Amino acid sequence: MLRLAPPGFLRFSQTTSFDVVYGGGESNVAVSLANYGVPVDFVTRLPKNDIGECALMEMRKRGVNTQNIIFGGERLGIYFLETGAVSRGSKVVYDRAHSAISEIEPGMIDWKKVFEGAGWFHWTGITPAISQSAADVCLEAVKVASDMGITISTDLNYRAKLWNYGGDREAIMTELTSYCDIILGNEEDAEKHFGIHPEGLDVHKQGSEVKAEAFLSVCKQMMKKFPKAKKVITTLRGSISASHNTWAGVLYDGEKMYETRQYQITDIVDRVGGGDSFMGGLIYGLLKYPEDDQNALDFAVAASCLKHTIKGDANLVTVSEVEKLMGGDASGRVAR
Amino acid sequence: MLRLAPPGFLRFSQTTSFDVVYGGGESNVAVSLANYGVPVDFVTRLPKNDIGECALMEMRKRGVNTQNIIFGGERLGIYFLETGAVSRGSKVVYDRAHSAISEIEPGMIDWKKVFEGAGWFHWTGITPAISQSAADVCLEAVKVASDMGITISTDLNYRAKLWNYGGDREAIMTELTSYCDIILGNEEDAEKHFGIHPEGLDVHKQGSEVKAEAFLSVCKQMMKKFPKAKKVITTLRGSISASHNTWAGVLYDGEKMYETRQYQITDIVDRVGGGDSFMGGLIYGLLKYPEDDQNALDFAVAASCLKHTIKGDANLVTVSEVEKLMGGDASGRVAR
Amino acid sequence: MLRLAPPGFLRFSQTTSFDVVYGGGESNVAVSLANYGVPVDFVTRLPKNDIGECALMEMRKRGVNTQNIIFGGERLGIYFLETGAVSRGSKVVYDRAHSAISEIEPGMIDWKKVFEGAGWFHWTGITPAISQSAADVCLEAVKVASDMGITISTDLNYRAKLWNYGGDREAIMTELTSYCDIILGNEEDAEKHFGIHPEGLDVHKQGSEVKAEAFLSVCKQMMKKFPKAKKVITTLRGSISASHNTWAGVLYDGEKMYETRQYQITDIVDRVGGGDSFMGGLIYGLLKYPEDDQNALDFAVAASCLKHTIKGDANLVTVSEVEKLMGGDASGRVAR
Amino acid sequence: MLRLAPPGFLRFSQTTSFDVVYGGGESNVAVSLANYGVPVDFVTRLPKNDIGECALMEMRKRGVNTQNIIFGGERLGIYFLETGAVSRGSKVVYDRAHSAISEIEPGMIDWKKVFEGAGWFHWTGITPAISQSAADVCLEAVKVASDMGITISTDLNYRAKLWNYGGDREAIMTELTSYCDIILGNEEDAEKHFGIHPEGLDVHKQGSEVKAEAFLSVCKQMMKKFPKAKKVITTLRGSISASHNTWAGVLYDGEKMYETRQYQITDIVDRVGGGDSFMGGLIYGLLKYPEDDQNALDFAVAASCLKHTIKGDANLVTVSEVEKLMGGDASGRVAR
Amino acid sequence: MLRLAPPGFLRFSQTTSFDVVYGGGESNVAVSLANYGVPVDFVTRLPKNDIGECALMEMRKRGVNTQNIIFGGERLGIYFLETGAVSRGSKVVYDRAHSAISEIEPGMIDWKKVFEGAGWFHWTGITPAISQSAADVCLEAVKVASDMGITISTDLNYRAKLWNYGGDREAIMTELTSYCDIILGNEEDAEKHFGIHPEGLDVHKQGSEVKAEAFLSVCKQMMKKFPKAKKVITTLRGSISASHNTWAGVLYDGEKMYETRQYQITDIVDRVGGGDSFMGGLIYGLLKYPEDDQNALDFAVAASCLKHTIKGDANLVTVSEVEKLMGGDASGRVAR
Amino acid sequence: MLRLAPPGFLRFSQTTSFDVVYGGGESNVAVSLANYGVPVDFVTRLPKNDIGECALMEMRKRGVNTQNIIFGGERLGIYFLETGAVSRGSKVVYDRAHSAISEIEPGMIDWKKVFEGAGWFHWTGITPAISQSAADVCLEAVKVASDMGITISTDLNYRAKLWNYGGDREAIMTELTSYCDIILGNEEDAEKHFGIHPEGLDVHKQGSEVKAEAFLSVCKQMMKKFPKAKKVITTLRGSISASHNTWAGVLYDGEKMYETRQYQITDIVDRVGGGDSFMGGLIYGLLKYPEDDQNALDFAVAASCLKHTIKGDANLVTVSEVEKLMGGDASGRVAR
Repeated sequence: MLRLAPPGFLRFSQTTSFDVVYGGGESNVAVSLANYGVPVDFVTRLPKNDIGECALMEMRKRGVNTQNIIFGGERLGIYFLETGAVSRGSKVVYDRAHSAISEIEPGMIDWKKVFEGAGWFHWTGITPAISQSAADVCLEAVKVASDMGITISTDLNYRAKLWNYGGDREAIMTELTSYCDIILGNEEDAEKHFGIHPEGLDVHKQGSEVKAEAFLSVCKQMMKKFPKAKKVITTLRGSISASHNTWAGVLYDGEKMYETRQYQITDIVDRVGGGDSFMGGLIYGLLKYPEDDQNALDFAVAASCLKHTIKGDANLVTVSEVEKLMGGDASGRVAR
Repeated sequence: MLRLAPPGFLRFSQTTSFDVVYGGGESNVAVSLANYGVPVDFVTRLPKNDIGECALMEMRKRGVNTQNIIFGGERLGIYFLETGAVSRGSKVVYDRAHSAISEIEPGMIDWKKVFEGAGWFHWTGITPAISQSAADVCLEAVKVASDMGITISTDLNYRAKLWNYGGDREAIMTELTSYCDIILGNEEDAEKHFGIHPEGLDVHKQGSEVKAEAFLSVCKQMMKKFPKAKKVITTLRGSISASHNTWAGVLYDGEKMYETRQYQITDIVDRVGGGDSFMGGLIYGLLKYPEDDQNALDFAVAASCLKHTIKGDANLVTVSEVEKLMGGDASGRVAR
Repeated sequence: MLRLAPPGFLRFSQTTSFDVVYGGGESNVAVSLANYGVPVDFVTRLPKNDIGECALMEMRKRGVNTQNIIFGGERLGIYFLETGAVSRGSKVVYDRAHSAISEIEPGMIDWKKVFEGAGWFHWTGITPAISQSAADVCLEAVKVASDMGITISTDLNYRAKLWNYGGDREAIMTELTSYCDIILGNEEDAEKHFGIHPEGLDVHKQGSEVKAEAFLSVCKQMMKKFPKAKKVITTLRGSISASHNTWAGVLYDGEKMYETRQYQITDIVDRVGGGDSFMGGLIYGLLKYPEDDQNALDFAVAASCLKHTIKGDANLVTVSEVEKLMGGDASGRVAR
Repeated sequence: MLRLAPPGFLRFSQTTSFDVVYGGGESNVAVSLANYGVPVDFVTRLPKNDIGECALMEMRKRGVNTQNIIFGGERLGIYFLETGAVSRGSKVVYDRAHSAISEIEPGMIDWKKVFEGAGWFHWTGITPAISQSAADVCLEAVKVASDMGITISTDLNYRAKLWNYGGDREAIMTELTSYCDIILGNEEDAEKHFGIHPEGLDVHKQGSEVKAEAFLSVCKQMMKKFPKAKKVITTLRGSISASHNTWAGVLYDGEKMYETRQYQITDIVDRVGGGDSFMGGLIYGLLKYPEDDQNALDFAVAASCLKHTIKGDANLVTVSEVEKLMGGDASGRVAR
Repeated sequence: MLRLAPPGFLRFSQTTSFDVVYGGGESNVAVSLANYGVPVDFVTRLPKNDIGECALMEMRKRGVNTQNIIFGGERLGIYFLETGAVSRGSKVVYDRAHSAISEIEPGMIDWKKVFEGAGWFHWTGITPAISQSAADVCLEAVKVASDMGITISTDLNYRAKLWNYGGDREAIMTELTSYCDIILGNEEDAEKHFGIHPEGLDVHKQGSEVKAEAFLSVCKQMMKKFPKAKKVITTLRGSISASHNTWAGVLYDGEKMYETRQYQITDIVDRVGGGDSFMGGLIYGLLKYPEDDQNALDFAVAASCLKHTIKGDANLVTVSEVEKLMGGDASGRVAR
Repeated sequence: MLRLAPPGFLRFSQTTSFDVVYGGGESNVAVSLANYGVPVDFVTRLPKNDIGECALMEMRKRGVNTQNIIFGGERLGIYFLETGAVSRGSKVVYDRAHSAISEIEPGMIDWKKVFEGAGWFHWTGITPAISQSAADVCLEAVKVASDMGITISTDLNYRAKLWNYGGDREAIMTELTSYCDIILGNEEDAEKHFGIHPEGLDVHKQGSEVKAEAFLSVCKQMMKKFPKAKKVITTLRGSISASHNTWAGVLYDGEKMYETRQYQITDIVDRVGGGDSFMGGLIYGLLKYPEDDQNALDFAVAASCLKHTIKGDANLVTVSEVEKLMGGDASGRVAR
């Protein structure tokens, strides 16, 4: 997607320019992994025009392989972002209808070829939300990946403003998720997609901090509903203000609940892509520490904590930067 | 429309920001007229979101009345503009499909009420080119205006990349144009819309300067085809390079051919909207000098000549600035 | 006024450009009201040059009616603003002497015509502070408004650097204020203009938070001195640092003291115009909730709280954004 | 003065920022001389605020001595500059009334002390044009300089928008100029200040190129009127467009007319300060080549030719750059 | 290299920011080829720090393969660029000493592996000019390439400010060039490197246009000196001013002299990298039109003509854009 | 040095421009003193090119005398700065090897002449760290200053990435420091340079706040080792995050330990140069309050506290601004 944002904290009606960032849920995860040195391919459909090529070039710059990207369709999805501060939240105006990816059709991508030699496939709940054909392609991919024994992960990513093409959200998401080994989703995702409710939690109350324990019931219900899943994970964001959040994560492996320390993220630079950076960190963590879920989770939380200090959608940090924070050094001293 | 352009002469793949301009064919004409002190209303359909409101605010800032603008639909049309220089022409990437105005439907605007007290209605060939329903609304408007005895003008504005919804371009344009009193169109418009060919003219040859005499045959054919038309006008642009054009105009009133001096426009700042600024100047000229077509035409050419020095789609000049140039002072001395 | 500010936190001697904002006390209130959908007219005198016209265009863009603005005089008042942070406060260099408004004369504006159909007139203590003739015009306006039964409000707005033309501040302000129904002013205004002292309050102590109770004595004295006044209101700002303020408000209706919750405004984007945004919110609140002063006050405080997140003098927020914050949601979550 | 200009070719109503330049006629000459390595002092009066200090710092940065600058008064003069192109000339909006220098009074500067050790004093026709007291101080300075045997030069610099304080321009300028050894002035200056007319010259006709011969009659009349004058010099600007000027100069020493080659200045970057850069080059040339007026004049013309490629008021070029152009190399090859 | 340039036409002492471009002679050629769809590898040595990685990312973004880049050394070479206009040429301040590439040593790169599957190797005269060890590595590469039967091309690229490490320039360049099949070099290169003089040519005279015929004698001498060479090519630049150049090229194949039309490049955006863009176009042309040297040369000239309209060192144009200009369309019309 | 920083919080790989600041340890101290009105000379060696001259001009602009600066060498040292936020610290990439100052040689500066009339000489631990010859020159200066009875101060300024030329750091620093009257250094400096350890202090633990008492043992050991020293001073920085530090200072005069209040510096704008600004404030404080070390220390801490709100290396604040904060007003109210 193309993100267009007024500079600084300007409102839309004040700006005479937009800062340009190419991003989007899945590509953000891909960039994270490339930054960590993991070979990664981004598969999507881009319009055959300069704007589509700019998006591809940005991927390539970051070290993401782009040879499986196909071209076609009318346009690249756009979102306009107004950055908020303190009590004024950031505001997103979507202009993503009729994007090239929304008009993808089953058969356009040769998934068997794409997945050759791959070990992991990640998709998010945004793709099936944009059109029936995108949902179909997602299912097509998930089935092939599953057949080939590839680990499958998802970020459920519920978005209220999508899903307006008339598809049966619960049925679609349930089928897709049933193929997954790793499920990332917060309590809102679980509720909206599957009707699963956490207990004792009001996420809309100002300053409320999501309690890890309360999420346990959600995890258990998720595990029951999706028996293939090996881990259910969530981020725990406390929104004190647009400039100050708390941040932590929990992971349930069917037996044990892992929890991280809680970070105070004051002076937020850009919180868009926070969840994606968590996912990128989580995949890396699970790959690097296959026997140590605590470490994997700690990596994911520290990584996404750092994301809030980076302008743009993608998390442009290195493994050593994440590990420094994981190791407890949040002092922000000058590295020189 | 929202125009997004890399700053200076940067290519799309070089920029990290887009300059933001709200414009579009008809709104550019409206802004010109407002600048000249003519009371003017812009009628369109905008999406009910921040981007649509920004477009409206820009109109209002320039003194164009906006009370007849209706809201609805999904998005504001966008075009991406890369500014060329010398032998590299500017490049436009359209992203205007599914815009609010393209999904307008007959009946949405109460034209009788809109035209109350109005003396002039201007439409362009872009509107019927974007969708069948937009063409229908255009016809609806033209008929009401005609019934109410309002002067009707058009800028034929052929665009190769539009008209892809399947409508019969020639039939549609012929019917719409048949209601017009004033027709602006160059030889390409006449050829593409109505199959009318000028003689002895090759507009695609480098450095070719369109000859006024050659256009006479086009005018005569146009007048014959559209008997209601009182005047047929064209701009004569010679493209020496992206940075240097020549510029002039001719007007045929059925009897006489009026011609202007030819301007050398070196060091072009922004040539987008050149035709619209001509139309704005022409309407003003015809209103101000109703008995003096030469003066009206001279005003139009001088006005649009100045447009090439203004960044953005709209022509932000005053009557006195145009008249100074009309009067022969192209010295560009500092006014202090 | 024209505000010229170095970008970001640059000092004057570091900048090679100034960010341009057109604003000023009364126009900020007008813009607030226009944003809330209240029909509003801004009456002032602007110089007949490009800079004056830019100020007018900005008003018009925001939906403020400008037909009663008159033109004349030499210049638009300017102020230079250096934005501070933490322990370095923002700094203002005024260059407003000899402005068009300061040289306005009684009789230049036909107040009877201006007030036709109007229900409310707002003036601030800045206007009579700039010149004798401006004070005279202010009195002229207030008298006509009073005769026509229009509600009159004022923001006392004491400014130490003004009032240097030699007028008797106390006498002038006392007469002008005696016509007012609604008086906004903090304890400094009351002390400087009318010699009225609050009790138990040291506003200059670092981090001191103005206590609502202490303001009650000021209100009572004000009500006694200005019997026409129906409500006396003040903002309660606690300056912890240039980047962190607390914010609340109190309203006294002669019988009861209404008080709001206290907001923590960390990460301030721009605090200039905070008082004006309060006034804009208050007028809207009193119009919308005529029987509910608590609601009106809550709206004013929430509105001006949001102002601190907006760059520029004027408060560019909507009713729904204010109501969201009033309703208790200060979480700053992304709206998407 | 503080110059505020929209970036690029934006009009005032399009900009959200102003580029900041500190300059002004006499200070531009001072900066030129400092760049050429000539010890130079700038004497003026600045307001005692941040804006005044910024102006001083800019002088100091450029190597101009500032110890004789005095502080006081209200404000720094401002001018707003809109940069034109092609047929749209640049536009200046002055806001210089009531500046610190305009309110200077005789006696404020101890000219004897200022001129200690000095060899040259330069003033321009702008100073006596802004106020009676500034004219008085100018005369005060000129008399002291004359008494001390210092070479005096002037740039007559007629400005139509100044001289509105009611002083008798011809009398004032005649007296001041009578003390001068070196007089720079074009035909307009001579006509407006002293009623001296050139022959056969229409400077307002588009594209007219001022003829050197025609200026001879002006020089002779000037020499007659001002017997102390040793040289009368003028620049010969041909305004083909705002982007393309021709540029040359002539010098008359009472006996001989020296003339330079004519430069084609296409693609003008900034023509403001062109005359000042000529003066700076001329003083340097006369100092360096005291016996070779042709060389001095060539230096002045080449220097000011280069000025048109420099953004801002002052001519930031070195002696070697000017000499390269004087030597005939206008090829603009990359120096590497 | 890292190029740091003040924005627009600002001089170094005026800027508060530098525009950042990563480029350099050989990388510019690589980017050109990647843009034309030719698989291309860039081989260099970069410092292992963020600045080195940024240079690599820019290559990768443009589609250049970077897997053969090695890391080590202290720093990335820098050059500061001030963009000139009209009679003020652009100015380069080099800060490239001690760069990572200058400290490369023979043996660091496994050329056999690098050249596996490659068909063409291009080097420039800048590499041997920066240090003895870089010259040694260059020779090492050329020998391996020659052994492997790879086509070798060079751009002689004489730079007066380099070659200061004390190496015997003529000997080094003669040996290196003796391996080449394709030699690009202008008359200055031939003279400085090999003492070969053209006849009847003064390239330093202002406005002089290099004559093609005069270059023939140079070509013949070159062919004689370097018998392996199959073609000798040069660009013909006429420097009318920093803003206006003429541009053409000639190619001599030992028998016939091919010559192109001469382009007028007015309104130059950025002429740095002009030669590199010619070389990129030439390699592409020779690959695409192996039997048609005229076409290859025309492509090279048209490509580099377009380069002058592109900001930065590299030529960001497509084959179809070059072919359009080759085909004679220099009209610069808007592509929409 | 030349500092090149991406704007805002952008990472190196995201920026297309660098903000330009000229600074460096000793020059920052000089600028501080010039701002406080203390006559001050900066002695260094700059390359004779445009970049070196820009550095000099910036000094001159700030009122620092530059006549003792010598020219020579290859380049100006550069450092690239990426500004961090919250848990991501700022990052510095040095590119200072082979700078003009690093290649200075004894005898190049005539220290006797430089110190004529001077009362204070300040050097920092960075100079001897960059090369043997720079260390030699430093020693040369210190000896002359000592002979001439000039007060000598140092900021020990340990930098891990320097000292790589092979000099014996401890021996060099010990000799140089033995000449000093005033020694500024934190516990890390003492440890790395002299092997002196504080007790009970872990500066690397997140959020740790350096305790003043713990520093007493360091001071005592320092005093013992350097008997000429009259005062040992340190800053106490607590790094809560990159955006929030605490800040205080202690001074030990051999008898008594002076301590300041601790400031909370939230919302840090730029912490680079914090130590230098402390040193600048300290020298001023010791000069102004020669009998009152507490006041001197308070001034230093308040001054450097303000530095954190200023963009760039140097502390651009006035005495009155520092005194306001010293006096307890950290409210950051708008000064108007």
